[in-house]
Amino acid sequence: MIIVMKADILPESPEVADVIRLAERYPDVRAVARKIEGATRVLTEVYLLGSTSTLPQEPFEEFPAVEKVIRIRERYRSIGRHAGQVEAIGFEYNGVRFSQDDFHIFPGLCAVDTPENTEAMFRALKAVGVVTTRAGAYKPRTSPYDFQGHGKACLPYVFELAGRYGIRVIAMEITHEAQIDEIRQALAAAGQCTGVMLQIGTRNAQNFELLKAVGQQREFPVLFKRGMGITLDESLNACEYVANSGNNRILFCLRGMKTQLGEPHRNLVDFGHVPVVRRLTRLPVCIDPSHSVGKKDVAPDGILDIAHVTAQGIIAGANMVLVDFHPKPEQALCDGPQALLLNELDYFLRDAQLVRKAYLERCALRATIGGGATLTDQR
Amino acid sequence: MIIVMKADILPESPEVADVIRLAERYPDVRAVARKIEGATRVLTEVYLLGSTSTLPQEPFEEFPAVEKVIRIRERYRSIGRHAGQVEAIGFEYNGVRFSQDDFHIFPGLCAVDTPENTEAMFRALKAVGVVTTRAGAYKPRTSPYDFQGHGKACLPYVFELAGRYGIRVIAMEITHEAQIDEIRQALAAAGQCTGVMLQIGTRNAQNFELLKAVGQQREFPVLFKRGMGITLDESLNACEYVANSGNNRILFCLRGMKTQLGEPHRNLVDFGHVPVVRRLTRLPVCIDPSHSVGKKDVAPDGILDIAHVTAQGIIAGANMVLVDFHPKPEQALCDGPQALLLNELDYFLRDAQLVRKAYLERCALRATIGGGATLTDQR
Amino acid sequence: MIIVMKADILPESPEVADVIRLAERYPDVRAVARKIEGATRVLTEVYLLGSTSTLPQEPFEEFPAVEKVIRIRERYRSIGRHAGQVEAIGFEYNGVRFSQDDFHIFPGLCAVDTPENTEAMFRALKAVGVVTTRAGAYKPRTSPYDFQGHGKACLPYVFELAGRYGIRVIAMEITHEAQIDEIRQALAAAGQCTGVMLQIGTRNAQNFELLKAVGQQREFPVLFKRGMGITLDESLNACEYVANSGNNRILFCLRGMKTQLGEPHRNLVDFGHVPVVRRLTRLPVCIDPSHSVGKKDVAPDGILDIAHVTAQGIIAGANMVLVDFHPKPEQALCDGPQALLLNELDYFLRDAQLVRKAYLERCALRATIGGGATLTDQR
Amino acid sequence: MIIVMKADILPESPEVADVIRLAERYPDVRAVARKIEGATRVLTEVYLLGSTSTLPQEPFEEFPAVEKVIRIRERYRSIGRHAGQVEAIGFEYNGVRFSQDDFHIFPGLCAVDTPENTEAMFRALKAVGVVTTRAGAYKPRTSPYDFQGHGKACLPYVFELAGRYGIRVIAMEITHEAQIDEIRQALAAAGQCTGVMLQIGTRNAQNFELLKAVGQQREFPVLFKRGMGITLDESLNACEYVANSGNNRILFCLRGMKTQLGEPHRNLVDFGHVPVVRRLTRLPVCIDPSHSVGKKDVAPDGILDIAHVTAQGIIAGANMVLVDFHPKPEQALCDGPQALLLNELDYFLRDAQLVRKAYLERCALRATIGGGATLTDQR
Repeated sequence: MIIVMKADILPESPEVADVIRLAERYPDVRAVARKIEGATRVLTEVYLLGSTSTLPQEPFEEFPAVEKVIRIRERYRSIGRHAGQVEAIGFEYNGVRFSQDDFHIFPGLCAVDTPENTEAMFRALKAVGVVTTRAGAYKPRTSPYDFQGHGKACLPYVFELAGRYGIRVIAMEITHEAQIDEIRQALAAAGQCTGVMLQIGTRNAQNFELLKAVGQQREFPVLFKRGMGITLDESLNACEYVANSGNNRILFCLRGMKTQLGEPHRNLVDFGHVPVVRRLTRLPVCIDPSHSVGKKDVAPDGILDIAHVTAQGIIAGANMVLVDFHPKPEQALCDGPQALLLNELDYFLRDAQLVRKAYLERCALRATIGGGATLTDQR
Repeated sequence: MIIVMKADILPESPEVADVIRLAERYPDVRAVARKIEGATRVLTEVYLLGSTSTLPQEPFEEFPAVEKVIRIRERYRSIGRHAGQVEAIGFEYNGVRFSQDDFHIFPGLCAVDTPENTEAMFRALKAVGVVTTRAGAYKPRTSPYDFQGHGKACLPYVFELAGRYGIRVIAMEITHEAQIDEIRQALAAAGQCTGVMLQIGTRNAQNFELLKAVGQQREFPVLFKRGMGITLDESLNACEYVANSGNNRILFCLRGMKTQLGEPHRNLVDFGHVPVVRRLTRLPVCIDPSHSVGKKDVAPDGILDIAHVTAQGIIAGANMVLVDFHPKPEQALCDGPQALLLNELDYFLRDAQLVRKAYLERCALRATIGGGATLTDQR
Repeated sequence: MIIVMKADILPESPEVADVIRLAERYPDVRAVARKIEGATRVLTEVYLLGSTSTLPQEPFEEFPAVEKVIRIRERYRSIGRHAGQVEAIGFEYNGVRFSQDDFHIFPGLCAVDTPENTEAMFRALKAVGVVTTRAGAYKPRTSPYDFQGHGKACLPYVFELAGRYGIRVIAMEITHEAQIDEIRQALAAAGQCTGVMLQIGTRNAQNFELLKAVGQQREFPVLFKRGMGITLDESLNACEYVANSGNNRILFCLRGMKTQLGEPHRNLVDFGHVPVVRRLTRLPVCIDPSHSVGKKDVAPDGILDIAHVTAQGIIAGANMVLVDFHPKPEQALCDGPQALLLNELDYFLRDAQLVRKAYLERCALRATIGGGATLTDQR
Repeated sequence: MIIVMKADILPESPEVADVIRLAERYPDVRAVARKIEGATRVLTEVYLLGSTSTLPQEPFEEFPAVEKVIRIRERYRSIGRHAGQVEAIGFEYNGVRFSQDDFHIFPGLCAVDTPENTEAMFRALKAVGVVTTRAGAYKPRTSPYDFQGHGKACLPYVFELAGRYGIRVIAMEITHEAQIDEIRQALAAAGQCTGVMLQIGTRNAQNFELLKAVGQQREFPVLFKRGMGITLDESLNACEYVANSGNNRILFCLRGMKTQLGEPHRNLVDFGHVPVVRRLTRLPVCIDPSHSVGKKDVAPDGILDIAHVTAQGIIAGANMVLVDFHPKPEQALCDGPQALLLNELDYFLRDAQLVRKAYLERCALRATIGGGATLTDQR
């Protein structure tokens, strides 16, 4: 770590002594101040050496006499893609493989409401050969007066039906660590006939205690949704809590950013970050077009905005799509009108696969160009 | 609730039928569509009657054919200031009274580090007659590699010292419901020699499970910090979870909004919302100038930005100030450089009291003007 | 226009009288108040009839007793896609056709620096058969101390070289109305050997005087860049100034939104709005991947983020791509490192065309599904 | 300027050569690369020496191999408060003195509508001894279909009435450089009976051509309103265009930031930046509470939010207040309902003066504390 002091602060000044004193209070850290002479002024830099990887940056940044703090160590120690690391994080769960090279669509119910609708949903998935879905039992809602989900009461029939229709993985949001056990017990009672991916919602993206809880178990993979109102860097740091607690079977999900700049969409679609997350981490990247767009508006080409932004995620390499369907959206107790209809499922999948194929063609085209000399000498 | 349909959608259209069908699936709700004729076009409105107070708004808003949803019922049922309600929510805790008419400053340690620094802090408070403070034991941090607080290990000496120096209320952030018991037990072990106000940090502002947990106990009052990246309305709805769970001994704390528009401050100071929260709710309003500003910069008038924004909150009626002090900021393990020094405490309090006095004079001036005829006929 | 009053305000109240009085001060406007009875409360609505299309909305919204103002008239009168209007706005300029059905890539220099670099750029375009480019002569810069562009001094050689290499349309930003004449004269002097599309930059998106100036001429088409920090609706309203002044040969360009939520990209890529602008207006939609991303980072699939977001715009129907290239980016006086190299041009175009082909296949797939009954009954 | 390269890039690498080559293309700039050895890794820094003050920062920042660019030179060369500069920028215009030590309130019409209302406004000002006002003739509006102001047609009676009622300075927004001449001529025709301060609105904050135009004249002082959606740093840089063109008689006006985080206020009030602008520049600082708040809501203490945020600006040292009044707000053609009534004028002024007095007392209290040893050793 390097602390750059403001102009005209000399190495022997009290301000520099303050920085050094703070630094050396941390175990195994040494600090050296150096004077840098420019044409018209001088500059002091303090170099921190030794065990600097756990040093916080902020205390140094907030000294009035400090210009900048530059951290040399690499970020995202567990989930990050570090120099020299070629392989991405990949894993198989209940027969389904997840990695930056795989691709899955999870169409399903935003919120479970009735066994009938759940069954209709799963039956439709089976008909088109899809074994991955979403189903919300625990719903965090902005107001305490809104429908909060059926909770553990619905798990038995959800899991039993999933098993019956060959569903292998259900993405399911949890809001409290106790729900992990509820899910574990319900799955056991249902004879492990299906699997669950624990979803951390955007409102809990910095609920570090919950992140540690899903990180301390290794039974279920974790779908981490990017936080609202915080930077991508902060979301990735939060996600690091999961991996750092012991579980690196994680997928990172983009779901739009809450800002008035996204209107008329519900959120400002952020799928331009698909290649960024793939580069900064080794995690597979998921997109949630339903919550990003929030409405079933259709472009003049006859294609839904939801399908358009899905295509945008896929054409840039997304590995998973979480998308709301509902047999009878007008009956949905949560986010109904953004849900697609079951008779739109087959078309939606064909459209997505068409785009996935184009993405793979883009990769093939890129591979024919070759590497260093031509395209990458700006890197 | 009134659902306004888009132009040219007639009452007998299928779109209106969809809206009515969804509405009438909720218990005790009836729906009536009415045709409104303008000069050049017609408009349909659907009126929902009966038990509409728990109806969610979003499912209707997201129908493509719906223009607007207007909710008539009042918001913030528990914490809100409703028409005809004159009295604010006020309460006394451990001998200290909190309400929209009271005023307290809580200077203290952002994070507890050593018994020596804690004692130095409390001794300084006693010297100036302050019985309220802040002290962080459980620290949520952006990165898992940063200092996370001493947790329950520090509670015994924090409480014992508080008792010794006459501290009556300590604002202390919690990040997990189990910490409520840890605090309760440590207080009991220390002979209830002081009191604690449970603080919910900005990152947990929509951690609804934690909000319910602090709402289900009535022993400790709750300091709710506004969430980052969500609207004030959403923060107030989240705060409503606490009250709705049974505890309305709540203070609402403004702490700045995270956006690049706030630079060079750490956050964009949002104390212009002090009168708004006082109007929309009956809760006392707290400000956190330290985390809003984040730096000890000084204006040309010699006054710290932190003191300036403190004055801005107070002059508009703030009831509580949470402010970071530290005996040796250069040793602080968290947010040190934003902490004021102990030798700045007396001046800080005098400056704040000067402004509080000016606020009361403003109220007195306003009272001399009288009411309806002159100033309020725009209301 | 309908003015919805707050709960419990009766039609005969003074608040309603105020609203009616304001409304009727506008020529040819009548106002009628109606009482609406709900189950538990009453509501008053004021209907404005007659010549309401030019009524401002804000003065009514800001009455404290007003709950909502609902405007019935359609937005974006000139550029909007109104019910029943099938055809988009399309036009041909200097032999190149622009519409929501066409597609063009404008690779070129962000800022013209030397005749040599300009010629190298144009020669490379000719080699791959591209007749559209960008070239910046007038550069608005954040600081007055940064390079401001060569201005009209470079126009003679830019136009002469464009003619020599068969360039038919150059997108060129202007910052002052006088520059229109400078461009017109330089084009005349160069024998009209090429054409110019006048670009309004994001900083001038609400410079209404400049918008009127480019709207009052019809010689050059206009490329309007979305404004930073304002909503899409506000940008479309600003764009309406151009059309309303007489020139509807307009393209609307998305270029990313300035917010810290976009990091590490320079801006938060907003190409999810491509289908939105195509739906709300009849204008062809352009994307600017270079300024959105701002860096030449590469994803693990070997593809530049700039190429990925380009693909995202195209797969959702973008009609034009504005992209920075430079023969020697290290020499560029503005935005050099985001510029692609000339030896990347052929690959970039092939990648983009591959994606455009996939977009057309998506449209064809959609067309095979058919219309109303299946996919659109949510509309 | 110092260019810090990313980890493990050696001084002799091609990436460093690229940086040096770009740097040395600027006149009189030399570059030297140095290798910095940490405990576990090496780092290269490139020092730019010589005439670096006009070097742009961005081209270097955007090299992928560059970690950070640190500029040593001071910012805001003309308007900035530089080390060692004690005196603020102050000036007298038409008998009124403006500086960081002065204080003036400009109550007035957001938009001029009729001679009767203008006269009523000015008469009220004279009655309370105020000689400064605002009056909008040229109104930039979001939509071309909204009222655009009476323009130069109203100037004769505005100026004549101003002279008659002793108004010395009118703040008046302009949107085009030609309006400067219109104002100049109308003032001459009116016998220079009053003065004008040219206001640059938030939508034109980066209309650099207009900024240069008001900077190239020295007759009228300039009121620069902070831009929406850009950082404070960018607004200050834009303001620097005015000073750099020759006119440093500038006031910098805060008017709230457009973001959904400010709701229910029209904008998020940003008066926490009053001490920041006073510190970073030598300009007097103005606040616009009317456009920040946008509504006449009243807190439970009976005081308008508009008056509360006015107090917040003043208690932190604001030098000028721009505030909307209107004799008959219900008749106003623009922003009527945020306008205060004439019978609120006297009270508003007394409230503001009470707070200004408290601000001066705060300064006096601060002065009694003394300087270096106690309060400022953190600086």
